[in-house]
Amino acid sequence: MRAVLMQSGRLWTDDVPDPLPEAGEALVKSLACGICGSDLHALKSTDEFIRTSQETGGAFKLTNDSPVVLGHEFCAEIVDYGPKTSKAWKPGTRVCSVPALPGLGGTVALGYSNDAPGGFAQLMRLSQRLLIRVPEGLPTDHAALTEPMAVGLHAVRKAQLSGEEVPLVVGCGPVGLAVIAALKLARVGPVIAADFSPKRRQLALDMGADIVVDPGTDSPYSHWADVATVDERGRGLPLAERSRSSLKPAVFFECVGVPGVIEQLMLGAPREGRIVVVGVCLQTDHFRPLIGVNKELNLQFVLGYSVAEFEQTLTYIADGAIDVSPLVTGHTDLDGVADAFDRLATPHSDAKIMVLPWESKGEG
Amino acid sequence: MRAVLMQSGRLWTDDVPDPLPEAGEALVKSLACGICGSDLHALKSTDEFIRTSQETGGAFKLTNDSPVVLGHEFCAEIVDYGPKTSKAWKPGTRVCSVPALPGLGGTVALGYSNDAPGGFAQLMRLSQRLLIRVPEGLPTDHAALTEPMAVGLHAVRKAQLSGEEVPLVVGCGPVGLAVIAALKLARVGPVIAADFSPKRRQLALDMGADIVVDPGTDSPYSHWADVATVDERGRGLPLAERSRSSLKPAVFFECVGVPGVIEQLMLGAPREGRIVVVGVCLQTDHFRPLIGVNKELNLQFVLGYSVAEFEQTLTYIADGAIDVSPLVTGHTDLDGVADAFDRLATPHSDAKIMVLPWESKGEG
Repeated sequence: MRAVLMQSGRLWTDDVPDPLPEAGEALVKSLACGICGSDLHALKSTDEFIRTSQETGGAFKLTNDSPVVLGHEFCAEIVDYGPKTSKAWKPGTRVCSVPALPGLGGTVALGYSNDAPGGFAQLMRLSQRLLIRVPEGLPTDHAALTEPMAVGLHAVRKAQLSGEEVPLVVGCGPVGLAVIAALKLARVGPVIAADFSPKRRQLALDMGADIVVDPGTDSPYSHWADVATVDERGRGLPLAERSRSSLKPAVFFECVGVPGVIEQLMLGAPREGRIVVVGVCLQTDHFRPLIGVNKELNLQFVLGYSVAEFEQTLTYIADGAIDVSPLVTGHTDLDGVADAFDRLATPHSDAKIMVLPWESKGEG
Repeated sequence: MRAVLMQSGRLWTDDVPDPLPEAGEALVKSLACGICGSDLHALKSTDEFIRTSQETGGAFKLTNDSPVVLGHEFCAEIVDYGPKTSKAWKPGTRVCSVPALPGLGGTVALGYSNDAPGGFAQLMRLSQRLLIRVPEGLPTDHAALTEPMAVGLHAVRKAQLSGEEVPLVVGCGPVGLAVIAALKLARVGPVIAADFSPKRRQLALDMGADIVVDPGTDSPYSHWADVATVDERGRGLPLAERSRSSLKPAVFFECVGVPGVIEQLMLGAPREGRIVVVGVCLQTDHFRPLIGVNKELNLQFVLGYSVAEFEQTLTYIADGAIDVSPLVTGHTDLDGVADAFDRLATPHSDAKIMVLPWESKGEG
């Protein structure tokens, strides 16, 4: 089969042997697979990604010893089954799955482990018991967006909102857009969203943001404070000195994942503000703890989603409760993946580029 | 009066004019005032302390334009009153107060503001309405420990413990010891405490720690995991991969306040671990957000205490619910303060050195 391979910061297309489904596994065609910001990080900072993943444990079983097939946001089609499977659905059935492959050595992350190739290839192995059937009529692209949208749903759940908060979403790439969708679903708002890119600000509005801010011309934090002020007498004071009673509670979502942004949010937050870190920054970051101390901030780091949250997200997308149609801004075949990575690395007219492993028309 | 002055990283003793109590204020003698780690930080990194305090707002109104009198952990004695005071207690009455001075420009931090001299001087101004009477028979040193012990009480309250947690206290200086005392009071445990200094480990035991660890010879995190394991089958796995159900919940208290320690705790924490940052690190710190993301960690920064928590702490000390007698490891007069700062800056045989502004016997 054709596959996009990644090793030591290089990305190329090649012919590789077809995968063989093992016990409990299905063989599937990858019909569509989105490119994730973490894929870009993994390509650009492979060594750092590997080192930190090893230090922190977890399911990312990536080394530089052999190529890896990235891609973990997929919609697939059943081709065949391995041993010890119930073969519940016929070949041709469309499925999604959380990108995890249980095995003898524990569960590994699909698309981030050398032994568990991801969706930037024509065929994949998936665990049969993790398969979720895609509802009839749902476009394949939209089903493939289940994974990134589930990240937003999980982040908002982890934020444990009381409903009183005014949320600020910093960064309107796919992660920020998923958070916005989940906030609208949770009926929390008004939702304020900030991004330098006009295209991404428009996407934020399309996904349900109530107010968008261009940080190049306007402070997202001042904007937030204007909206969150409940006691006009507090307005004269610097944000950090205002009492909690003069402001609605703050919950800021960090959806950029670049060094320095966490500290920016800490500086921008009011006293007792909460920051949910959803963006994945692979590099070493810097911050001044005294900022957090002086304001008694809370930082909640979040990752992924549960299987239940993933299934719930697919249902929301199929029902139209989350409208993902604005998100796909481009498609590519396998040979165009490297170019698409380049396009995504430079800001910022794209949201999600979908890889179609069985097409061969070049990037478009 | 005699006072210890601090400006631009220098500390010296001098004669300065006696303070005059303003409206709503009492004039008091500082009977005893503890040296705090933050005082050492403010001396060593004055510029950084000033800059970050200004950026984050809050009550630290410190500049390098004139000297400041440090000292915010005091027990005092009423001498006189300014205008518009009820003069509720007679001269000679011993009092404590949260180290805050309300004024026209807002409340400022006593001992960290050029206009609100602290307790390393013979006389001070205090707000009459913030005065708390020290119970008869309570040693003055012990009353002066209300402030640092309130920091521990507040930190443990902000941790919002369910009672199931196994706490790990990293750093057994005064802040860590205060946290240990508050954890014992909250009946959470076993309490594990880590410090390189044998003297401080002994103090941790004296304050109620159940297990002490020398990080020079043994990992506090492995020790924590051994104690927190509830499901023996989890033992074979690296800590970060163990499910939450195989471990009791983690709450780690960062009580060191030195760059790098927050990341150490993040690396040592299990999945969904909570880290309460009580130590005040003034320098820019570094950390890898991916560690937090991979484990979905939560960082809660804490500062100070409420007036109610301060009063409650004094009551606990007076009742013997918190036994502070092990904490005072030295005394000094004003002329010995600079030497005492040096002694405290080098690890680590001291806990709290108490300044006695009316003594004149040199350090001892």
